[in-house]
Amino acid sequence: MLEPVLKFLDDDASNALERLQTLLRIPSVSTDPQYGDQVAEAAGWVADAMASIGLDARIEQTDGHPIVLGHARPDDVMADGPRVLYYGHYDVQPPDPIDAWTSPPFEPQVRDGALYARGASDDKGQVCTILEALRAWRQVHGKWPVPVSVIIEGEEECGSVNLPKFVAAHRDELNAQFVAISDTGMWDRQTVAITYGLRGVQFFNVELHGPNRDLHSGVYGGAVANPAVVLCRVLGGLFDEHRRVTIPQFYDDVATLTEAQREAWRGLGFDEHRQLLGPAGVDRPIGEAGFSTLERRWARPSCDINGLYGGYMGAGTKTIVPSFAGAKVSFRLAPNQRSEHIGRQFHAWLESHDVEGCRWKIEQLGSADPIIMPTDAPYMAAAQRAVERTSGRSAVLIREGATLPILTDFKSILGLDCLLLGFGLADDRIHAPDEKFDLACFALGCRTHAALLAEL
Amino acid sequence: MLEPVLKFLDDDASNALERLQTLLRIPSVSTDPQYGDQVAEAAGWVADAMASIGLDARIEQTDGHPIVLGHARPDDVMADGPRVLYYGHYDVQPPDPIDAWTSPPFEPQVRDGALYARGASDDKGQVCTILEALRAWRQVHGKWPVPVSVIIEGEEECGSVNLPKFVAAHRDELNAQFVAISDTGMWDRQTVAITYGLRGVQFFNVELHGPNRDLHSGVYGGAVANPAVVLCRVLGGLFDEHRRVTIPQFYDDVATLTEAQREAWRGLGFDEHRQLLGPAGVDRPIGEAGFSTLERRWARPSCDINGLYGGYMGAGTKTIVPSFAGAKVSFRLAPNQRSEHIGRQFHAWLESHDVEGCRWKIEQLGSADPIIMPTDAPYMAAAQRAVERTSGRSAVLIREGATLPILTDFKSILGLDCLLLGFGLADDRIHAPDEKFDLACFALGCRTHAALLAEL
Repeated sequence: MLEPVLKFLDDDASNALERLQTLLRIPSVSTDPQYGDQVAEAAGWVADAMASIGLDARIEQTDGHPIVLGHARPDDVMADGPRVLYYGHYDVQPPDPIDAWTSPPFEPQVRDGALYARGASDDKGQVCTILEALRAWRQVHGKWPVPVSVIIEGEEECGSVNLPKFVAAHRDELNAQFVAISDTGMWDRQTVAITYGLRGVQFFNVELHGPNRDLHSGVYGGAVANPAVVLCRVLGGLFDEHRRVTIPQFYDDVATLTEAQREAWRGLGFDEHRQLLGPAGVDRPIGEAGFSTLERRWARPSCDINGLYGGYMGAGTKTIVPSFAGAKVSFRLAPNQRSEHIGRQFHAWLESHDVEGCRWKIEQLGSADPIIMPTDAPYMAAAQRAVERTSGRSAVLIREGATLPILTDFKSILGLDCLLLGFGLADDRIHAPDEKFDLACFALGCRTHAALLAEL
Repeated sequence: MLEPVLKFLDDDASNALERLQTLLRIPSVSTDPQYGDQVAEAAGWVADAMASIGLDARIEQTDGHPIVLGHARPDDVMADGPRVLYYGHYDVQPPDPIDAWTSPPFEPQVRDGALYARGASDDKGQVCTILEALRAWRQVHGKWPVPVSVIIEGEEECGSVNLPKFVAAHRDELNAQFVAISDTGMWDRQTVAITYGLRGVQFFNVELHGPNRDLHSGVYGGAVANPAVVLCRVLGGLFDEHRRVTIPQFYDDVATLTEAQREAWRGLGFDEHRQLLGPAGVDRPIGEAGFSTLERRWARPSCDINGLYGGYMGAGTKTIVPSFAGAKVSFRLAPNQRSEHIGRQFHAWLESHDVEGCRWKIEQLGSADPIIMPTDAPYMAAAQRAVERTSGRSAVLIREGATLPILTDFKSILGLDCLLLGFGLADDRIHAPDEKFDLACFALGCRTHAALLAEL
């Protein structure tokens, strides 16, 4: 039964691309309140798309951005049995710096076999691989092989704050055998990856406040504390000379990497210069002493300053002692670390410094614990068969350094594990200017999701 | 002859205020190219004002912002003799952060006896004390007691880069006995100050560049250098535990303070909490060990981070490794330090750090050497008599921590010393939101400049 579905996908490819482009034109930036209306507009688009496929779709309001939910009606399913719950997100990262984009972030453009736009790969393009696979089955056979539900949220890029409550309140409705997600990457251009481990995350906005206003540096310079200077001193001490985070107890809970695990990862033949550093214009890896780049990404925690701000940031100069200075600071957490504990330790570490009479304003913006999933489940085998069918080779089992906060909630609230079937590429520039999604990856994703439905 | 001039100033006060407000409505922010037209508009206003007083006025274009020049015609002067050259600037600091202003920065408003606007005190208000004094003499007596010239520039707030060349090219035309400037402060609300020493300044824009774009911190965090982290580490090391700048040779040339000098300054009865820290909302002084607050401001160099920027600076969060991070860094230089030398040393100090493969982009934005002026010149005595006449008490001799870059040039190019007669107050919030100029200071400034002309 799969063959005509795959043929439909091939024949309908330009329509599918058209549909994805329509979604990409909506600037659904969830973290910035000024995009509220556009986030709602994207939710509406997703609900309409689900309805047009034949799903029973609805939009659920939350305290933040809406969640879109769709279920296959019982009559539209060939064989009864445990449901597949698809998850994705329709929100995107901010487009800044806008000037660095070759074409505008919300005007999708196809260049050299790839579609360029904010969200092309993360995650609107990958969400559409699921929707198109569902559409094709329904168009060709009128029904789906197994019961399916789809939940697409609008807050993944700002911490999925309202999804857990919603999932908990709809526990029965969301019951399933597993959650299928496409929001990760391929191993390389030919090899699909199934991701079984993800780091957690914890992010903060940290401001240090000093004078009640910006002061003239000629009058006050050298006589009062400068919050920007003090902030640099404190945050400049985040790492020791081995590039280990200096926050007390930071590494205490990190799961130890077994030698077998390290050996298996070495066997993947990861070329850090070609696959990671080169595309980013970076000459050499920098990280925690004693670990390889892959180990640092998949099994070790990290800390980054995501942004710095404060004082005069315009062109030219303004010789002031700024009233305050701030930083966005985030942690990626390795298996076994608990975000709550790390948050407390970071807070205490900041407070432990002499800040020369300045005052901290510390905001925790979100967090998610790390997660490791079993690799021997039946749906894993089905996914492997589907990938072999559509790509001609086995999927590799990998971890990722990034975070999908909702995985922990699916496990703790619904008791469900997740299948992370990724079609992005390392050079997709997600979260960055010129984000793109290869059309070949888009097609492979649609076909593989169609094949997975046949294998289940 | 002075009495009717002073009476005219009193009677004409509301017109003078109206004129100043018109000038303050022009946002002549010189450091930011987007205000170019408004800077030119302010130059036009100043030239018109000079012409309306009866000066032979003209606007001179430069490679940057225009210079306005006005001379008394020989027939309009009572007694021939050496000329007084008045100097001031019509440009202002940027108004950011705009939200922190009680009333809009370029819509002047009188509240509680003070005029609020960007430039009210620095320096449009003080420039107008000179123009109004000249206007009053001319209105009342038709002539000025001595020859006068006025030069008002538009680049003081961005380093006076084009003025030295102009002064050098017009050496003969600008010949004078001394330069009179009102761009400094009073000692307190009752006591005019004559400032005889100023610190120098040197300012930089420093950026550290890493990846060729912002990177996803889940994928790259912990595996590559983060320019914001490295920038904080480097700049966090600007000071040692005695709060001395760590740049090699930084203090080598600083003139030693004599015990007599320190004793004299202690005798001024400076109340650092009431006069400096309190208005800024600062609890305690922070600065170089071994020196008082006044000594730190007047005789010791300082270093400030004036602004930090880079990565994601918007609302919420964006978990990236930023492509670059930057800082505005400025130095205030103590007597005998040379800006050129300090600039070289700072540059070398930055380059001496291991920046984990990142690359510096260092821009020097401007500089001025520190200056000390003689206190026994005849015009100093004249100024003292004028101040006693209008304020009823002696002026105190002080230094300032701020910088007037052009003073060094007046000395080296024209061989002229400067009389710095200040009418600003410590709580005028120059360079900051809610900048103001007390109407009593404005009136005292106009009257004192009028009296100085009588005494010369």
